[in-house]
Amino acid sequence: MPAEGISRRGIFDALAAGSLVFAAAETAEAADEPPKIEPIAPFKYNIESKRGWQGEGGSAKEATVEEFPISQSIAGVSMRLKPGSIRELHWHALAAEWAYMLEGRCRATVVMPNGQSEISDFGPGDTWYFPRGHGHALQGMGPGECHFILGFDNGHFSEYGTFSITDWIKTAPPHIVARTLGITEAEVARFPKEVYIGPGKVPEAAIEPLRDAALQPAQSSHKYRLDMQAPRVFPGGVEYMVSSKEFPIQSTLTAVKMILQPGALRELHWHPHADEWQFYVRGRARVGVFGSHSRTRIEEFGPNDVGFVQQGYGHYIEQLGNEPTEIIILFNSGIYEEISLANWLGGNPVSLLETNFGIPKEMVDRLPKRETGIFKRA
Amino acid sequence: MPAEGISRRGIFDALAAGSLVFAAAETAEAADEPPKIEPIAPFKYNIESKRGWQGEGGSAKEATVEEFPISQSIAGVSMRLKPGSIRELHWHALAAEWAYMLEGRCRATVVMPNGQSEISDFGPGDTWYFPRGHGHALQGMGPGECHFILGFDNGHFSEYGTFSITDWIKTAPPHIVARTLGITEAEVARFPKEVYIGPGKVPEAAIEPLRDAALQPAQSSHKYRLDMQAPRVFPGGVEYMVSSKEFPIQSTLTAVKMILQPGALRELHWHPHADEWQFYVRGRARVGVFGSHSRTRIEEFGPNDVGFVQQGYGHYIEQLGNEPTEIIILFNSGIYEEISLANWLGGNPVSLLETNFGIPKEMVDRLPKRETGIFKRA
Amino acid sequence: MPAEGISRRGIFDALAAGSLVFAAAETAEAADEPPKIEPIAPFKYNIESKRGWQGEGGSAKEATVEEFPISQSIAGVSMRLKPGSIRELHWHALAAEWAYMLEGRCRATVVMPNGQSEISDFGPGDTWYFPRGHGHALQGMGPGECHFILGFDNGHFSEYGTFSITDWIKTAPPHIVARTLGITEAEVARFPKEVYIGPGKVPEAAIEPLRDAALQPAQSSHKYRLDMQAPRVFPGGVEYMVSSKEFPIQSTLTAVKMILQPGALRELHWHPHADEWQFYVRGRARVGVFGSHSRTRIEEFGPNDVGFVQQGYGHYIEQLGNEPTEIIILFNSGIYEEISLANWLGGNPVSLLETNFGIPKEMVDRLPKRETGIFKRA
Repeated sequence: MPAEGISRRGIFDALAAGSLVFAAAETAEAADEPPKIEPIAPFKYNIESKRGWQGEGGSAKEATVEEFPISQSIAGVSMRLKPGSIRELHWHALAAEWAYMLEGRCRATVVMPNGQSEISDFGPGDTWYFPRGHGHALQGMGPGECHFILGFDNGHFSEYGTFSITDWIKTAPPHIVARTLGITEAEVARFPKEVYIGPGKVPEAAIEPLRDAALQPAQSSHKYRLDMQAPRVFPGGVEYMVSSKEFPIQSTLTAVKMILQPGALRELHWHPHADEWQFYVRGRARVGVFGSHSRTRIEEFGPNDVGFVQQGYGHYIEQLGNEPTEIIILFNSGIYEEISLANWLGGNPVSLLETNFGIPKEMVDRLPKRETGIFKRA
Repeated sequence: MPAEGISRRGIFDALAAGSLVFAAAETAEAADEPPKIEPIAPFKYNIESKRGWQGEGGSAKEATVEEFPISQSIAGVSMRLKPGSIRELHWHALAAEWAYMLEGRCRATVVMPNGQSEISDFGPGDTWYFPRGHGHALQGMGPGECHFILGFDNGHFSEYGTFSITDWIKTAPPHIVARTLGITEAEVARFPKEVYIGPGKVPEAAIEPLRDAALQPAQSSHKYRLDMQAPRVFPGGVEYMVSSKEFPIQSTLTAVKMILQPGALRELHWHPHADEWQFYVRGRARVGVFGSHSRTRIEEFGPNDVGFVQQGYGHYIEQLGNEPTEIIILFNSGIYEEISLANWLGGNPVSLLETNFGIPKEMVDRLPKRETGIFKRA
Repeated sequence: MPAEGISRRGIFDALAAGSLVFAAAETAEAADEPPKIEPIAPFKYNIESKRGWQGEGGSAKEATVEEFPISQSIAGVSMRLKPGSIRELHWHALAAEWAYMLEGRCRATVVMPNGQSEISDFGPGDTWYFPRGHGHALQGMGPGECHFILGFDNGHFSEYGTFSITDWIKTAPPHIVARTLGITEAEVARFPKEVYIGPGKVPEAAIEPLRDAALQPAQSSHKYRLDMQAPRVFPGGVEYMVSSKEFPIQSTLTAVKMILQPGALRELHWHPHADEWQFYVRGRARVGVFGSHSRTRIEEFGPNDVGFVQQGYGHYIEQLGNEPTEIIILFNSGIYEEISLANWLGGNPVSLLETNFGIPKEMVDRLPKRETGIFKRA
């Protein structure tokens, strides 16, 4: 009876039920055609896999919806700056920028719409957050190249481009620039074409004063030292987390650094409120995602891979290999939320689980009541 | 002069004016072609009209954008559970769930991301609200089947499916489940395929403790007893209303139960802030909707029909038949707003209405100054 | 190496870098194909260029996404009312309405969903704001025609139309209207077809009482006298600004009236948070927009032209001609934010600018440290 059967799309519970129905036709009647549900999309991409941009001063490679279509809400970039090199003054029209410093040191300057400005140094384990549209610049402080991973709160942001100060100055009419900058048009002509990332000299270690000494001090810091936080310690690993509670300016994202010891398992859980974006710094792991309608997909990750788990999808992270696995994680919400399978089982009465699972009370009693978070090697 | 005429789309006032212009060409000049405006879409669907899902433990039928395309912001489900049967532990990735108990009794357990959990019983006239992504389960308490109407704050939600605990456990790798649950893989194999709705035994009347006795008590209740509220009484009927003011967790919806006595009329009004979704429990009514550009559509409703009025559209509800008409209504906002034609007329000066309507002061003086809400039989 | 090159879309920084790469291939390696980026769309439209709607009582011409596709977030209307004529009682389902009175006087009545109502008079330089869905009406007070510019917080709003009281009354079933209004169906038949803008008599100067004398006074005013504000004075002009700070009900928009003296320049800046919509009242100006990837577009504006600058795009306004230029500006946010090139340069250290621009310290020292806002004639 196709006309009376369940619909093919727009189905929800009745469709979910489908998997039971087709397996146990004696207990339920349902539609005569299996529903069509899209499988879970690939959720892995190696951010270093393309050439990206490479210049004298550094390099940049990215993962946007173009390369990594599932990642609608977050885009990522791996960037390197040589000592003294600058990522020039620029802004992003439609995305806020977050970063975690992997190696080396850099200095950042950011200007806010209230006229305040801030200059700060960043070393390994430090993070920054620049709200949408705020102007900023970076400079490698040496010794050695610095390398950081950037996250943007819009997977499409690169279609709108980055707005560089030299590109603006060079493409605006010279007489307008001359008036705004109080210089001659001949002097305007001496400004370079778009610099993007260019070589430079390492500045003094002491932070140089801002040109306008009368500026108000910045009332909100753009820097949070994630690795200096006391981590949450689990049997199989540790977790550093920064949300808008600890870092108020970071209003659109929550960040986590997770280290899984060999053999660890980040147990089954989901995030009711946010997508999860992952960058694998070192080590390997296998991530399994559950997406209703019996849909699952498992991918293996190693260094420089980016992962993405959609809002509300169940998942786990299984550590692989003999060295610890380190992951930088972003959620597209300034508030962190999680529900684990174990806590859920603890928050229900025994009889309901007996009925739901068709297992004896003795076995229900052995199920966990509270999450472990990260299991150590079994 | 087509080139100079008003545009065909993107028109607003000038188009609205069109209806006057074509009717009264002596007072206004305008475009030479009538504008093309889509008529108001059908806004009625019988939620029991398809077979839906039917099993040993109960049944479910739905109205999503698939069956009822106008209902973009809200989806509905009619669900029945036999005594002891469970709607198993599950969550919804992209929708909050609201319910009104029509008949019978059920027990619900819900787990929140802050680790709190709550278990409550629901009888006729009680409502619940489970925020997006929170895990929950239901069980029929007998005697007799319970029947409730569910509303979700996303008309598309079923495309993303429901996430069932057994489906997750059964499709995740057995060694992962075994570690997370602290059981053997052989024991994992004893878990059932997706249960969805399955038979069970009616639990004790006394609420059973949660498995984890150390859990924090839930700081926000998921239950609101709508029928226990003192109703607003109108000449032709009564109204029970619950918004986020009375029920703080219900942040995305406002709910109303309205009873219209035979011959009653819910007078002309609109909601500036929200779509209106209706479920007809008993009795009949005729709803007329006004959508600018002289567009109107009238539909007749009876038991199990779902209706939908788009944000800002003018409408009325005319009771039909000899028994009272009972309607459960949802608005997609936690704050309630309404403007009635009568209050509007009262909030203007006499002379403006004389001019606007071209009627004498004597007649303006007889127009209402304040809404009646629900008129009794004329 | 196309496979290894940067992607063609979804590129951001690497693309921006492209412009450098192709110009200075000796310092950077990159993709072998120039990226494809859409040019900046036209951002000028003359709101008086079409016939619009013209009637005995007044006229209306508009700029929505239909006529002016770039203007996604804001629509505009130029409206004129003859003395005594009314823009009849109506509401907008999906847009709030803002206005600035250019010439003449009108009276407005607005009804709010909390049952409050307000009646106010507006003269040149006054503004109003009617939240989405609130019912309102206007009447010309003479002497002479009044002319005002309307802005709506939704560039698409006209597709949903305007909801007029006569259209509603005339198209609803007569027996429903008769019951709601407490009149006979024969009397309902005396109501006119949609009036839209119709002739009338100028009311008494003293504000007439509302029909319902018991109404609560409005707790939020819908009127703000922009021209009565003390302006910010710059070397080349003045600016009057009203955001939700000064006018709390205006929660979705910020408005500015700017007067540029002959030869003035509104210097280079951007708005991190909002699109900018402009209406040129008198005088002329040239606006240059910068949109990353070396994209620029310059348009010239004169009286009755509407302009639009997308969120985050750099821009300037260069006054033209011998009479002052007056512009009414709307931003689609109740909070105002701006970053100027000059303030940005002041909020950075000297050495960073030396490196970024490749210019000597002496020249950096001459660059501005703080914005001028509006320059006077050079």
